Amino acid sequence: MYNRRKFIKTTALTGAGITLLSNPILSFASTKKEKINVAIIGVGARGKLHLEQMLKRDDVNVVAIADPDEHSISTAQALLVKYGKSPVKAYNNGPTDYKRLLDRKDIDGVIIASPWEWHIPQALYAMQNKIAVGLEVSGALKLQDCWDIVNAYEKTKTPVMILENVCYRRDIMAVLNMVRQGLFEDVLHVEGGYQHDLRAELFNTADKCCSGVNFGPTAKGSAKWRTEYYAKENEDNYPTHGLGPVAMMIDINRGNRLTKLSSIATPAKGFNRFIAKNPLGGPDSPNAKLKFKQGDIVTTQIQTHNGQTIVITLSTSSPRPYNLGFKVQGTNGLWQEFSAGEFDKGLIYFEDKSPAETWENPQKYMEQYDHPLWKKYANEAVGSGHGGMDFFVDNAFVECVKRGINFPLDVYDLATWYAITPISRNSIAQGGALQEIPDFTKGAWKTRKNTFALNDDY
Amino acid sequence: MYNRRKFIKTTALTGAGITLLSNPILSFASTKKEKINVAIIGVGARGKLHLEQMLKRDDVNVVAIADPDEHSISTAQALLVKYGKSPVKAYNNGPTDYKRLLDRKDIDGVIIASPWEWHIPQALYAMQNKIAVGLEVSGALKLQDCWDIVNAYEKTKTPVMILENVCYRRDIMAVLNMVRQGLFEDVLHVEGGYQHDLRAELFNTADKCCSGVNFGPTAKGSAKWRTEYYAKENEDNYPTHGLGPVAMMIDINRGNRLTKLSSIATPAKGFNRFIAKNPLGGPDSPNAKLKFKQGDIVTTQIQTHNGQTIVITLSTSSPRPYNLGFKVQGTNGLWQEFSAGEFDKGLIYFEDKSPAETWENPQKYMEQYDHPLWKKYANEAVGSGHGGMDFFVDNAFVECVKRGINFPLDVYDLATWYAITPISRNSIAQGGALQEIPDFTKGAWKTRKNTFALNDDY
Repeated sequence: MYNRRKFIKTTALTGAGITLLSNPILSFASTKKEKINVAIIGVGARGKLHLEQMLKRDDVNVVAIADPDEHSISTAQALLVKYGKSPVKAYNNGPTDYKRLLDRKDIDGVIIASPWEWHIPQALYAMQNKIAVGLEVSGALKLQDCWDIVNAYEKTKTPVMILENVCYRRDIMAVLNMVRQGLFEDVLHVEGGYQHDLRAELFNTADKCCSGVNFGPTAKGSAKWRTEYYAKENEDNYPTHGLGPVAMMIDINRGNRLTKLSSIATPAKGFNRFIAKNPLGGPDSPNAKLKFKQGDIVTTQIQTHNGQTIVITLSTSSPRPYNLGFKVQGTNGLWQEFSAGEFDKGLIYFEDKSPAETWENPQKYMEQYDHPLWKKYANEAVGSGHGGMDFFVDNAFVECVKRGINFPLDVYDLATWYAITPISRNSIAQGGALQEIPDFTKGAWKTRKNTFALNDDY
Repeated sequence: MYNRRKFIKTTALTGAGITLLSNPILSFASTKKEKINVAIIGVGARGKLHLEQMLKRDDVNVVAIADPDEHSISTAQALLVKYGKSPVKAYNNGPTDYKRLLDRKDIDGVIIASPWEWHIPQALYAMQNKIAVGLEVSGALKLQDCWDIVNAYEKTKTPVMILENVCYRRDIMAVLNMVRQGLFEDVLHVEGGYQHDLRAELFNTADKCCSGVNFGPTAKGSAKWRTEYYAKENEDNYPTHGLGPVAMMIDINRGNRLTKLSSIATPAKGFNRFIAKNPLGGPDSPNAKLKFKQGDIVTTQIQTHNGQTIVITLSTSSPRPYNLGFKVQGTNGLWQEFSAGEFDKGLIYFEDKSPAETWENPQKYMEQYDHPLWKKYANEAVGSGHGGMDFFVDNAFVECVKRGINFPLDVYDLATWYAITPISRNSIAQGGALQEIPDFTKGAWKTRKNTFALNDDY
């Protein structure tokens, strides 16, 4: 169970309120657990990657899993066995059986990797039961969800981490290092996004893995639930991969904050085209004619209190190579990338270092500014999910739970980044009209410090 | 003098109004002049590039130049002599002496390359005198300027071309060719911009070419007038290089139109930093402390009637390699570029042609879809200004004036593209609020046809 007393003690000692509580350095506990008990809710494709990270560690006991899907449970149990463990207690008696898991008293932390609509209710239940939460990205069906999780944190003091793995991508962390060491000087503008062709993931058939044109109850994996969002909403439904990494570079919620956004969307053509061209579909198949509401490309302009501008892009229903489209521009130079994190696949320029007005290959800068965490853990990370990022995001989760401290990506980040989904939806529905982004920290952003990845611990 | 009767005759024959008049095919005249008389207003750095294009042609007589600057006049006359011509009549008796030039009866077309604030008044005067106008980019100080030039066209029927040379960049024309031949299928999203470090151009000293930290009356070249805009306005002051090329790809003002925009700007730090670091300036020099109003990076989201989205970027006060940042994404693939138009400096992907989810080097597509105009005129273009683009934009101007027909980039394009400057200014001043973009064609966009670069004539 999450150790609430440690937090109360720290608060008393520093005489500070929630601002300091959310600072892991100030709330650092004097002792840390050697081993923690972790449960996982949602053991589909994403959840099993987290499970595997947990099984590789000797400081974690996986004690329980929950998922209403029998196939997910059985493949998760097989993974436990593969790692020499016994199968664990599974909570699979319908969609709300996770509550019985969260009612256990022996769980230090829970990782939630369920379908989006379950993220907030499951996290709230865990927090109420004082179980520290690692919550997967996306899941604000409405803006109130973001306030609900902030309020739950402030009431229960149970920390929740947004498991945004791209914050830990090796090139991203090297660039963060460059930002912090002043190579860009003042950062002016940043970009990121989620530009990933998900069509084959969002459509399949129940009897045929990885191909097909169905979604919903008759399909497998995320096509079962995720594609429905494309049918019914028009929004940036996956903002955090693009926003999270650049938010940490410009100290969002820590001396800076997001203030306003405007979102625009293209027409929705990608899915209908995909289905019409698919041998298992065809132009006359029902889904080829279905009206999807989600525009193929959503662009969101975001303003910040300190003046930096942000552009976030969603492109998941069109054919394209994977690329999150990061760009960081400061008063001394800029970096842009076009691939999947390779050190040499991008362009960089610094006025005081590069040949005049000439792009350089980022490789040498990436190696020189490789983050201490990656230098220390590269061997462990290699082979883990998503090019090593999963190792680091899960490592941070575990190390903070062991220490009984708050997370470097905390509830305010979670609320702020999640909120882009419902706010972008409102903007698009209003023809791109400007929307206010709430200050979930209620003013605490002015004094909070950026403690993300300051050293090689987590 | 522009042949107005030809236009009236065409109108009568087709029984159509301004919509058809603005279509060069329909208004094609049966005879064309072998040689035309051209004048140039503004013979600074930009004007002299146009002058040189005119001097290279055997179908143009340059008959007059106007510029209040004595140095500009004398270097222009020297250029005439270099090309084996006699010096021409110069109108340099103050800033309004151009009117005497435009009052001449022997001028078929005038190229205007003066400071921005003179573009509209000079064009209006020429149009009133029935002299066809080639007008350089940028110059709407207020939205009404755009309406004024549209109204002048509709009243005088004197055509005006916006001299947007980037529409003629070789890679841009090849991509336009690919768009027209359906390689991208439905275009969804386009990007462009003006990302060009202009600091050394916008600051110098009167006694030292190309270096210094002064602007205004004590400086040379465009630093004399252009930098003032950065001191007093915050806007996308140079939208057409980015917008023009992509506008032609998605048929803006020809079956499609721009509807709304939102613009945001970063703080203005680049110039102060540049001046403070400059050996001729320093942190205590007056301009190092001047408050420039123009944000270093301006991002503008634009919506279109047909649903495509556009992002335009201005970045001219920060150190960076030159790159206009073009991107064209359709339902079948996308192209992005990061340099100055080189065929091999970018990324391209087509679902039906490329290896799965893998970028290709654009070179082979660029060669295969090289535009007929470039195939025909590459030799003539090479060595002309701005990598050959200037040849084509000036060639189109001359060929249309010779034929007495309207231009492929016409007054409605000019008004629409120019308008981004005052409208973005309003948006930024209102914190990024959404702005309507007027329909300068008054509904004619619904039936107008795209006739830009349809063949290898101009």
